[in-house]
Amino acid sequence: MQDLTLFLAHYKKVLDESLYKEIKKRNIEPKLKESMLYSVQAGGKRIRPMLVFATLQALNKDPMIGLKTATALEMIHTYSLIHDDLPAMDDDDYRRGKKTNHKVFGDATAILAGDALLTLAFSIVAEDENLSFETRIALINQISYSSGAEGMVGGQQADIEAENKQVTLEELSSIHARKTGELLIFAVTSAAKIAEANSEQTKRLRIFAENIGVGFQISDDILDVIGDETKMGKKTGVDVFMNKSTYPGLLTLDGAKRALNEHVSIAKSALSGHDLDDEILLKLADLIALREN
Amino acid sequence: MQDLTLFLAHYKKVLDESLYKEIKKRNIEPKLKESMLYSVQAGGKRIRPMLVFATLQALNKDPMIGLKTATALEMIHTYSLIHDDLPAMDDDDYRRGKKTNHKVFGDATAILAGDALLTLAFSIVAEDENLSFETRIALINQISYSSGAEGMVGGQQADIEAENKQVTLEELSSIHARKTGELLIFAVTSAAKIAEANSEQTKRLRIFAENIGVGFQISDDILDVIGDETKMGKKTGVDVFMNKSTYPGLLTLDGAKRALNEHVSIAKSALSGHDLDDEILLKLADLIALREN
Repeated sequence: MQDLTLFLAHYKKVLDESLYKEIKKRNIEPKLKESMLYSVQAGGKRIRPMLVFATLQALNKDPMIGLKTATALEMIHTYSLIHDDLPAMDDDDYRRGKKTNHKVFGDATAILAGDALLTLAFSIVAEDENLSFETRIALINQISYSSGAEGMVGGQQADIEAENKQVTLEELSSIHARKTGELLIFAVTSAAKIAEANSEQTKRLRIFAENIGVGFQISDDILDVIGDETKMGKKTGVDVFMNKSTYPGLLTLDGAKRALNEHVSIAKSALSGHDLDDEILLKLADLIALREN
Repeated sequence: MQDLTLFLAHYKKVLDESLYKEIKKRNIEPKLKESMLYSVQAGGKRIRPMLVFATLQALNKDPMIGLKTATALEMIHTYSLIHDDLPAMDDDDYRRGKKTNHKVFGDATAILAGDALLTLAFSIVAEDENLSFETRIALINQISYSSGAEGMVGGQQADIEAENKQVTLEELSSIHARKTGELLIFAVTSAAKIAEANSEQTKRLRIFAENIGVGFQISDDILDVIGDETKMGKKTGVDVFMNKSTYPGLLTLDGAKRALNEHVSIAKSALSGHDLDDEILLKLADLIALREN
């Protein structure tokens, strides 16, 4: 785990600096800029960027060639949190122990800060001079698909509609596959694209990402049932309170834990024996899917 | 004017079909798709796409090579209207005589429909196989700048902050230059990029677009003072009610009319004598800046 700890500490610093620099260097209305910076500086584990870096490392490439893509990805994740927290959506006052964007800057600025981060993300990929124009276009297409109406935004819509009604395991999986899964898949497959991985490697990495994505969500639901409020930095049990369907609710807590272990196992075996230097990536998978907060 | 009428009727139909097709063909959660379609089908003059087509025509190119860009541009314009109309922003119940998106679909879906249209716009440019990868990247960079924190979104933030306080003419111009001007400039300069116009043509077209953009806004403010409610399809005088600063407020009504004519005149003379087939474009400029609704 020591290697992973050093890896994460190093690349989290690199990523954070890149995020702040990309916003600070632009000529933006002060309050809007402050609001954008507030949310990207609100912390978080930077799971998606770390997946980009660790996948590049597994493919024997310098993780730094994924920096722009990782930065754009975290901006899109951040915008989605700002909009999801709005009173019109999940109406959350706190995230990661800090006041949500709209509680500090007001709803209007929070909506605009989200819009601005989403829009900026595309520029950052477009400006990545380390990559060919063709690769940048492929990444922009992928990120738009993963985060848009067919991916994350569609998943959020489905999630809202599923509130206060009982959904099947299949429906729950479909919601999460879009709401959180697609962006995690993008993290891994974008790195494969940047590294020019062969089709077998890309296929394997995709299976890995899909299963880590499901594991991530099951883990989230389990933590919501058994989690410790202090560790999570937000109220637990809220999904039950909101009548949201969850994996433990549909599978029992033990069943959810078994499903989680199964997905982690499928993810890991997808990578084995395929000429990947995957030590960091496998450890990161454990950290994501088997996390305690 | 006959030529322009036919030109607009033809390309409006082409544009509308492209807009609907780009949404309908994708696998989107039904309510979200309906909400996206509702707003793109809510009508409007399609000024920005028409500027793309007319500029390509002025550069002796087939306007159809700008179709994807024009479609993306109108999606971004539509998303901005959906978000601007939200209760947290301008709180409008009607637009173009129809209920606003959030009045029909609720605030959450309206936020997501806006997010989805913005995200989709980037895919549409990225997928434009008529253009080189390099041109697509240049367009994506330009559209992100024009519509993002340094452009439209920043202008909207500045506009919100200017409410209920007196601003100078310089501040008012800066707000509008970003809020509406940048996207109009993109309409014209994106066409120049697609047509591979020379630098002198591009410079002239940019001056044209900047001045038409200012004219468009002055015209909007004048119509708000003298406009006819039926023609506008929304309540007039609302800017005065909201204590927003306007051109007639700062320059008097006659002064605003003089400024409008001056900008239209500068715009038109920027184009003259530069090997442009600009008949349609000049007529369109009149229609935009000297419109009655």
